[in-house]
Amino acid sequence: MAEGSIKRIQVVKVTGAEGLIFPDVLAVEEPLEIRLDYGLPGERKVQNISVTMRTPGQDDELATGFLFTENIIKNKEDIASVEYCFIACAENKENVIQVSLREGVEPELRNTERNFYTTSSCGVCGKGSIGALRTVSAVKQKDDKFFINPEILYGLPDTLQQHQQVFADTGGLHASALFDKNGELLLAREDVGRHNALDKLIGASIAKGWLPLGQNILLLSGRASFELVQKAIMAGINIIASVGAPSSLAVELAEEFNITLAGFLRNQRFNIYTGAHRLLLPIHENTH
Amino acid sequence: MAEGSIKRIQVVKVTGAEGLIFPDVLAVEEPLEIRLDYGLPGERKVQNISVTMRTPGQDDELATGFLFTENIIKNKEDIASVEYCFIACAENKENVIQVSLREGVEPELRNTERNFYTTSSCGVCGKGSIGALRTVSAVKQKDDKFFINPEILYGLPDTLQQHQQVFADTGGLHASALFDKNGELLLAREDVGRHNALDKLIGASIAKGWLPLGQNILLLSGRASFELVQKAIMAGINIIASVGAPSSLAVELAEEFNITLAGFLRNQRFNIYTGAHRLLLPIHENTH
Repeated sequence: MAEGSIKRIQVVKVTGAEGLIFPDVLAVEEPLEIRLDYGLPGERKVQNISVTMRTPGQDDELATGFLFTENIIKNKEDIASVEYCFIACAENKENVIQVSLREGVEPELRNTERNFYTTSSCGVCGKGSIGALRTVSAVKQKDDKFFINPEILYGLPDTLQQHQQVFADTGGLHASALFDKNGELLLAREDVGRHNALDKLIGASIAKGWLPLGQNILLLSGRASFELVQKAIMAGINIIASVGAPSSLAVELAEEFNITLAGFLRNQRFNIYTGAHRLLLPIHENTH
Repeated sequence: MAEGSIKRIQVVKVTGAEGLIFPDVLAVEEPLEIRLDYGLPGERKVQNISVTMRTPGQDDELATGFLFTENIIKNKEDIASVEYCFIACAENKENVIQVSLREGVEPELRNTERNFYTTSSCGVCGKGSIGALRTVSAVKQKDDKFFINPEILYGLPDTLQQHQQVFADTGGLHASALFDKNGELLLAREDVGRHNALDKLIGASIAKGWLPLGQNILLLSGRASFELVQKAIMAGINIIASVGAPSSLAVELAEEFNITLAGFLRNQRFNIYTGAHRLLLPIHENTH
């Protein structure tokens, strides 16, 4: 297994009303920019084709597969080389990969601009994006006096599930839900895209004049990605709980912005990745 | 529950070596283009901000939430109206939504081009995209003589799980895997993004000179979206099995391209959504 695919961390594993510190691992999430280099000698062009949040490893396969499945290249004979690009971004040097086509191979870029659709925002560098968000969150930091009883969290997934009708019917939807500090459900939204479910929830909260959501708990039905944590920060959320695992970049962003991030919230247990101070419970070193 | 969020279909539910036809429902997946209309009277501009695959319903909240979490607008007072747009695309009239800002409100578009990153390809209309793919798949249709014993499918998730090391450690990764007709694992790839896992798998297959993959089975560890089915079609895959649910548009695309699409493959059961003829099993009407 590629060591670059996981990140070793410490988590607080909570059961009942007590937390124990354990070592754990996260799936790494990092941005990758795919560039295309093509044309005749002396007239080569370099075009940024896509930026995607991915787990490092097999980036050459990812770039090749992406260009092929997007119909930009026809086969492997189109490709002269696939190499990391060290020009743009020295500190994140393995986050830009350049696919150079053979002389005379014309990529199919006609539909590129129209066809690539967006799901999130992010610069090429994780650090760049995190820095860009900091100004926005300065507002958020002011009203951070929000503490909850950890046992409140245990009941949230069941409460959401009772309200998640389309998922119950189809098994095919992600959900985002907003709770108050007592675990009362205020609002839930579902969508095939988890980022859409959260955008709908935040859009509805804006319409109701609820922002910033500093005194609410956000529950995510699946995993916590960089993108979802970023959206939550924009809305002023201080406590995020996800039923699934968080990614490395989600945890880094939560830490940077002093967010409480809990994961694997199911079966009367959860892990705390950041911001444990907002949960009223004793935390001990694991001495076993 | 919004009726537009689900689509009623017939599926073949398979257990053992027999299939029964049942009515079922799918989560709807459709593209939504978000447009921004802003400026002073007489100088209004309209800009396409994003196209996302979403479940219809609360599109106004989705558009508002997206513009806010992407830092393009500051609050609801920036917005004059949010309305469906009927100009571009009459047949899919609820797939374009336009957010009009109040006079004098300047949206923050500085980072738009750089910051929105792409995860997939898709035109504004589902139909448009499906049509655009048809030429590509003409090649694929030629070597479609691939039939499998349905019982082969039951073992695939366990086989994948044994090879999915990073997921076992972190719980945070999606996987795509390629099997031969006897259920032997040929290749597996993992990533925080499910589209990336499939791009890596296809990229690796291209490097090995395996394409088209008409005699292989593709296993997806999660749900089957339009985007994943589209990528599989590009690689010549005829049989797709997913552990989770498919979306409505995934099923429509699979049907259009004569792909066998199975879902909910777990616990010795699965559903067949399209292309049941490739699975060697008797199918009966459900007479209960």
